[in-house]
This record gives sequence, structure tokens and C-alpha cells, in this order.
Amino acid sequence: MNYKMVGRIIGLVLAIEIIFLIPPMILCFCDGDTGAGLAFVYTIGIGGLAAGALTLLCRSAKKGFYAREGLICVGLSWIAMSLLGCLPFCISGSIPKFVDALFEIASGFSTTGASILPEVESLPRGILFWRSFSHWLGGMGVLVFLLAVVPISGRNDGFTMHLLRAESPGPNVGKLVPRMRRTATILYLLYIALTVLDFVFLRIGGMSTFESICTAVGTAGTGGFGVKNDSMASYSPYLQNVCTVFMLLFGVNFSCYYLLLLKRVKDVLRDEELRIYILGILGCVTALAINVRGYYGSLRETLRHCFFTVASLITTSGFATTDFDLWPTFSKTILVALMLMGACAGSTGGGMKISRVLLLCKSAARNIRSVIHPTRVQTVRVNGQRVSETVLSNTNAYLSIYVIILIVSTLVVSLDGFSFTTNLTAVISCVNNIGPGLEAVGPTCNFSGFSALSKLVLIFDMLAGRLEIFPILILFTTSAWKRQ
Amino acid sequence: MNYKMVGRIIGLVLAIEIIFLIPPMILCFCDGDTGAGLAFVYTIGIGGLAAGALTLLCRSAKKGFYAREGLICVGLSWIAMSLLGCLPFCISGSIPKFVDALFEIASGFSTTGASILPEVESLPRGILFWRSFSHWLGGMGVLVFLLAVVPISGRNDGFTMHLLRAESPGPNVGKLVPRMRRTATILYLLYIALTVLDFVFLRIGGMSTFESICTAVGTAGTGGFGVKNDSMASYSPYLQNVCTVFMLLFGVNFSCYYLLLLKRVKDVLRDEELRIYILGILGCVTALAINVRGYYGSLRETLRHCFFTVASLITTSGFATTDFDLWPTFSKTILVALMLMGACAGSTGGGMKISRVLLLCKSAARNIRSVIHPTRVQTVRVNGQRVSETVLSNTNAYLSIYVIILIVSTLVVSLDGFSFTTNLTAVISCVNNIGPGLEAVGPTCNFSGFSALSKLVLIFDMLAGRLEIFPILILFTTSAWKRQ
Repeated sequence: MNYKMVGRIIGLVLAIEIIFLIPPMILCFCDGDTGAGLAFVYTIGIGGLAAGALTLLCRSAKKGFYAREGLICVGLSWIAMSLLGCLPFCISGSIPKFVDALFEIASGFSTTGASILPEVESLPRGILFWRSFSHWLGGMGVLVFLLAVVPISGRNDGFTMHLLRAESPGPNVGKLVPRMRRTATILYLLYIALTVLDFVFLRIGGMSTFESICTAVGTAGTGGFGVKNDSMASYSPYLQNVCTVFMLLFGVNFSCYYLLLLKRVKDVLRDEELRIYILGILGCVTALAINVRGYYGSLRETLRHCFFTVASLITTSGFATTDFDLWPTFSKTILVALMLMGACAGSTGGGMKISRVLLLCKSAARNIRSVIHPTRVQTVRVNGQRVSETVLSNTNAYLSIYVIILIVSTLVVSLDGFSFTTNLTAVISCVNNIGPGLEAVGPTCNFSGFSALSKLVLIFDMLAGRLEIFPILILFTTSAWKRQ
Repeated sequence: MNYKMVGRIIGLVLAIEIIFLIPPMILCFCDGDTGAGLAFVYTIGIGGLAAGALTLLCRSAKKGFYAREGLICVGLSWIAMSLLGCLPFCISGSIPKFVDALFEIASGFSTTGASILPEVESLPRGILFWRSFSHWLGGMGVLVFLLAVVPISGRNDGFTMHLLRAESPGPNVGKLVPRMRRTATILYLLYIALTVLDFVFLRIGGMSTFESICTAVGTAGTGGFGVKNDSMASYSPYLQNVCTVFMLLFGVNFSCYYLLLLKRVKDVLRDEELRIYILGILGCVTALAINVRGYYGSLRETLRHCFFTVASLITTSGFATTDFDLWPTFSKTILVALMLMGACAGSTGGGMKISRVLLLCKSAARNIRSVIHPTRVQTVRVNGQRVSETVLSNTNAYLSIYVIILIVSTLVVSLDGFSFTTNLTAVISCVNNIGPGLEAVGPTCNFSGFSALSKLVLIFDMLAGRLEIFPILILFTTSAWKRQ
């Protein structure tokens, strides 16, 4: 383990977080919320000390940096980020309990959007901004940002690759361009451009600047923290539709946008994952619309709520325009299935990712074929390319670990005595970074009722879900920490 | 596809079923239930015609018989067995609707024990006997029985192996002795011996001969159909404990008993699956006993109910002495986890099987190790022996297909409008061949409320679960049916 290099990178991550803590601090002072402003000042001070200490202690880092270092680095960075990021909530008194504040910011960074707050409209705007902005930072990943902007001297492409792979979602992170660092830059430029576009469309619809920014960054990260108590229910149909469209856009693999910029439209249209994504959305909306007909005044309204809810759950955003916990069981089961699947790999959405589900299905079909014809060699292809056995094996392991985490977490959370559906959907919601679940954690409820132990488990689930399990799970293995 | 050979074997399976239909027929006539007795006579007649026709049509079968033929043979045999076996219920009017009768017998053969009957004590004893006996026949498998008793001329060991593998539970069916046919015989002799022992202990406890037989065959198959409306609640503590012990014994891999007969005690004690089975039971009983303390009068009574329920659910029997749907959510979550895991491979129990769960965990741990150390070659070992990549890959595919079946089935069943927990646990219960679920399909309820479509889906789930998915799933693929 190259401890010093890991320490140095965590120091840099904290430094970047400090920079992003400045805008909400200024907002607090502008609004006259001195208490909240000072909370940010103290947080920046503590973060500065920690970042400085880490940088000093880890000056003379060795060169060796491998997959293991990449994973541990990402896992620890996200924990450090969350520990620092929750301080403004604590110190300002907006969320007095530490575990609640940690839950809230972990929910933010992991783009879950599950909240322990019963209402948000009374909170200082700076606090609300930081809460929503954490989605934006977590959505594309803070280490990807780091790689995009900070040249770390003497580091080669392998170094960048290990970090990028560990933080980016999807079973098989590809390079957009041969140099990984440029890939990170392109990703962030696309991310910023789409976020700004979202903001502009929201402003055109008459949303205030502050709300537009918060909603745009929340949508971009496919987060789910709103600035209104009723999430998106009170916004105009136009604004809701803008959100629907942008949630869906942020659920697409960003490499598709890069290909579009290069005018390689055919490659985009041929992408199997994108096709399933689009067909899945249309299919689910149709099924839901038929199932909830009569719940709303007109077909137009029904379609608006169905599209919004499907977009919100397939991209694991978690915004709501309607209380879907009141929908029929068939609809709710579709929504749970969407929660499990999630959006495209390489997007800011959570969940298993469509490409992973696709790989699992194709790999299972391959095994059925090989049971029927044991002597024939069977391969798995996606987009016409053969998928390596390592990727297939890792994807299968992912499913196993995923199921184990679901079962163990549900078991621990069930100690609090909520219903089975509440516990299961709370855990699914956190592991998949969605936000709301059903029953006691439905879209009109919140997570405050859980015990501290359950909240810690759910925090683990949220981070493990966002980082796709390995970077967090690896922290609990002994072999990861051995010197060699 | 060797259609003629498949047809011949199905004919033989039906012939064996006819033989087992004779005892309940005699019982009906002895009890003076002429209606029910005639129902058996008609069924035997129809079965005889079908068996005769198949034997005549498929006289000149070719020699080729491979894995594909084995799987299709097993899948079709079980469907044919169920279609014939449900006729006594239909014709006698005990279960007037065909789909209900089919559900009941599929539940019997698959050793699920899920019932659509609100009460059973008014049914003719012959009908009750056939219902319970279907567990016994399904538990060890009718084709295993066929192989044990009928010498099929000119067939080699490969033929026997393909059939035995397709019908026996577990990820990697081993041979007890070099010759597969002898393996089948040994398995059935052990099965009969244990069943008789169970019967003797029940008789000693004062249970009537009829009830003892029905309970013994039900326990042997780890079924769950009782002859009392309250399952086992009204029996004496001694009888309940006898059931607990025998359920647990039938959940052990039968090859362990064979090794015991050979006095290879050390090999048995070293078996990883058996250790997990025993430790898992003790751990779960302890956790449940702590969680439901205060629900019963004494620690003794609490332990009795906990042991019984754990034994009933881990072996996927489904008998009940208490309404565990009233237990706290933590206990219910443990029970759902047990339902998912199931008993040992090579036992009559259902579920995923412990050895499969063990393989999945070890395979996932291997992948975590290989992510940390990408260059090292990592192998998976069980009981000190290296597990082949084919078995690992099939086990992983099993999990994927299992999850897909769970989600799709829950979705279809949810059209009936029951609660999410009801639907999910009904499906889990059927796929894992348990019997009761939670809420509307809890231990005091039944499955009669579901629509015909849901019942058909659940019948598919029960058969797919008992035959470990592939033999049933393969019937829906085109490549299985190609001539070559």
C-alpha cells in the first residue's frame, strides 16, 4: 500500500471540497444568516487544517500506484469528504445530530437524495445550496474532477486510470480518448454544459435563480434533494417536464454525448444499452399509465406524472410530483424493478446499471445455451464486441455481493421494527442511490425514524452503491491494507 | 432431440405414478368414499391410456441421449405427472377448479406445500393421503426412482447420469458410487429408511397411523401439506419436536448418510455445507428466541417454536406450529433470508441450497481478491477441492436467472392487487418450495385468492424451483427443440 500517495490525494480532495464550500458561505452572509455562514467558515478552517496536515505528512510519496491504491483512495476520499461536508449542517444547528448530518451529506454526495429532514423550506439558503450542490459534486465524482483540473506531477496514465475506474459507474469504464486525463476533462465539460442548459430552461419557465441552480445541480447529479417540502409537486407542468427531460438526459452514458459531438450518430443509435434505456422507459410509462388511469384528471396529467416518476426512479434521482406510494401494487412493483435496474453506465445515475443487467442476462443465456450444447464454445457480445470473461465474472460477483448487502442491511434495519416493505425498499433505495422507498420511507416521508445503527448501515449502503461496492467493501478486507 | 426416448421415459414415469395412485384409491373404497375412489379409478385409466400410447408410439427409440434430452425429459415428466396427478382432486370434486387442482398437486410434487384449500379436515382420507404422498414422490424425484427400479435396456451410465443430474438438487451432483444406477438405489433406500424411522417415532408419540404416514411422507419430502387445518399447532410438544428433528435430517445432503454408513465420520464432520447448516440453524434459533421472548409462556416453549420454524423454513418444509407472521419484523426478515437460502444440496429441501450460496460467496470473495491483486491467479475451493470454472459460472447464472424469475413473477402476481410483501413472499415461497409466505399468504392463510394467471405463474415457479430452473426454463428455448 502506497499510504503516502493515498494521503496526498485525500488532502487534495479536501482542498477541492473547501473551494466548493465558499459559494454557500458567501450566500449565507449575503442573506444575513451569520450563524450558518460561520458554520461554513469553521468547516473550511477544519478542512484546511486536515488538508494541510495530510499534504505535509505525505510529501515524499513513492511512485507505485495500482488498482488497490485506486480503490482505497476513492473509498477513503468519499468518507473524508462526507465527514467534512456534514459539518456545516451540524455546526449551524440545521441538523443538530452528527449521525443525521452525516446521513444527509452521504445521501447528497452519493446522489441518493434520501433525507432525514421533515421539512426544508425553513433552512438557510446557503445550507440548502450546499445540500443540493453535493449531488453535483458526487454525480460525476470528485476524483474525476481532481484529475480533470489538477496536474499531479510525475503521474502516468495508469495512475489516472485506476482512480477514474474506481470512481466511475459501470461494469467496464472505457476511455473516450487515449489519454485518461483528457477523458476526465471532456466528461466534466459535458457535465457543466448540460447543467447550464438545464438551468437556462428552468429560468425560462419562471423558476427563481436560486431554485433553478439547486434544481439543476440536483438533477445533474440525479440526486433528489429539493428545496421545497413537496419536492416538485407545486411546480408548473412545464418545469416538471423540463426536469423529466434532463433527468433522462443525465441517465445516458456520457460517452454517447461525446460521440454525438464527433457526429458519430450511428454508433450512438447502435448502442444496446441506450436502446434498452429508451424502450424500457416507454414500456414502463405505458404500463404505468394504463395501471393508474383514473387517478388523475386527464391523460396528459397521467402521462406527465408517469414520465416524471419513471425518469426519477430509473435515473435514481428521487424527485417526486405525486405520492406514488398510493399507486396500485403492480405500478409499485414496476417502480421497485426500475429502482433495482437504474440508468446507463457512465451516467450520473445509480442502481445496478442497465449494461450490468444486460451482461447478467446475456451471461445467463450463454450458460443456458452451454447446458443445452455442452461442447460448443459460447461467447457474450455487447455492441458486437466480445466481453471478456473477467468482466463477466466481476459482474456476476457484483450481483452476489449486491444481494448479500441487501439481505444483511435489511436484517439490521429491521431491528427498528418498521414493516418489511419499508425496510427492504429503504435499503434498495439507499444502495441504488434513489431517495424515497415505499410505506414509511415513501415519497412524502423521510428517514428520520430510523435508529443511529440503521442510519450508519444506510450510509454504508449509499456510499457502497454510489462507488459500486468495491471501493467501500475493500476497506473492510485485511489484504487490502497489507504493505505488499 | 431424441423425441422417442423422451416419450418413452415420460410413459414410464406415468406408469410409476399409476402404481402410487393405487393405495389412495384402496383407502377411499375402504373408507366408503366411492366418489373419491372412482376419481382415482378414472385417473388411473386416463394415465394408463397415456402411458400405453406413449410406449407404443415411442418403441423404436434411437440411442443418442445427452444433457439436453435429460433436462427436457425431466421438465416434461414433471409437467405430465402434475397434469395426471391433479385429476383425482378435480374429478372427486375436492378441488373443483382445474387450475386450483393443478396448483395443489404441483405444490405437492415440488414439495412446496402451498395450498389453495382453506381447510382440509373435511376431505376424504384418500385425497389427503395422495396430497401428502406427492411430497414424498417429488422429494427425491420420480426419475431417480425410475432409475433405481426399472432397468432400461441398452442404456449406459451417461443416460442415467443426465437424468439424475437434471432432477437432483444442488450445483454439482456427485456420484456416491461409480455406477449411477446404484447411486439412485442407495439414495432411495436411505430415503425409505429415514421415512420409516420418522413414522415409528410419530406412532410412539400417539399419532394415528394415517396421520403418522401422511406426516412422515410430508416431512421426508420437506413438503408442508398437513392433514390438520392448523398444520402442526395442535400436536403435542413431543410430536412437534420429532418433526423438527426429522425436517432437519431430511435437509442434510444424503451422501452424508451414505458416508456415515461407510463409517467415514471424519469426512462428514469436515463437510463445509453441513457445518454452515448446523451453525446457521443454531445462530438463527438464538436470534429468533431473543427477538420473540415474551411471545410465549416459557423459554422451553419459545425454543420449541423457534426450532420448529427455523427447521420448517430452512428445509423449506412449511409446516407451522405458530403464526410467525405475528413475530417482529427482525424475525420475519431472518425467516425470509432462510427461505432464500434453503437447505443442503442433495437433500429433499428446496431453496438456493447452502452449497450454492457458499459458492456464490466464495466466488465473490475471489473476485474481490483479484481486484486487489489483479495479477495473482485465484481459485475457489470447497471441502479442500478446487471448484471448476464451469460450476462457478453456472452457479452465477443460476443466481441471475433466479433474480429475474423473482422480479418477473412478482410483477405478474402484483396485478391481483395484494400488498408488495404478500406478492414478493408468495413468489419467494413458491420458487423456493416453502409453502407459506407473509401477510395474505402467511401460515394461517392460503393461496386461493390469487387469479388463475397468478396461479399459473406460481405453478411455473414451484416446478422451476424444485427442478432448479434449467429443466423447466429450457422448455421455453427454441434451440432445445431443434432436431440437431
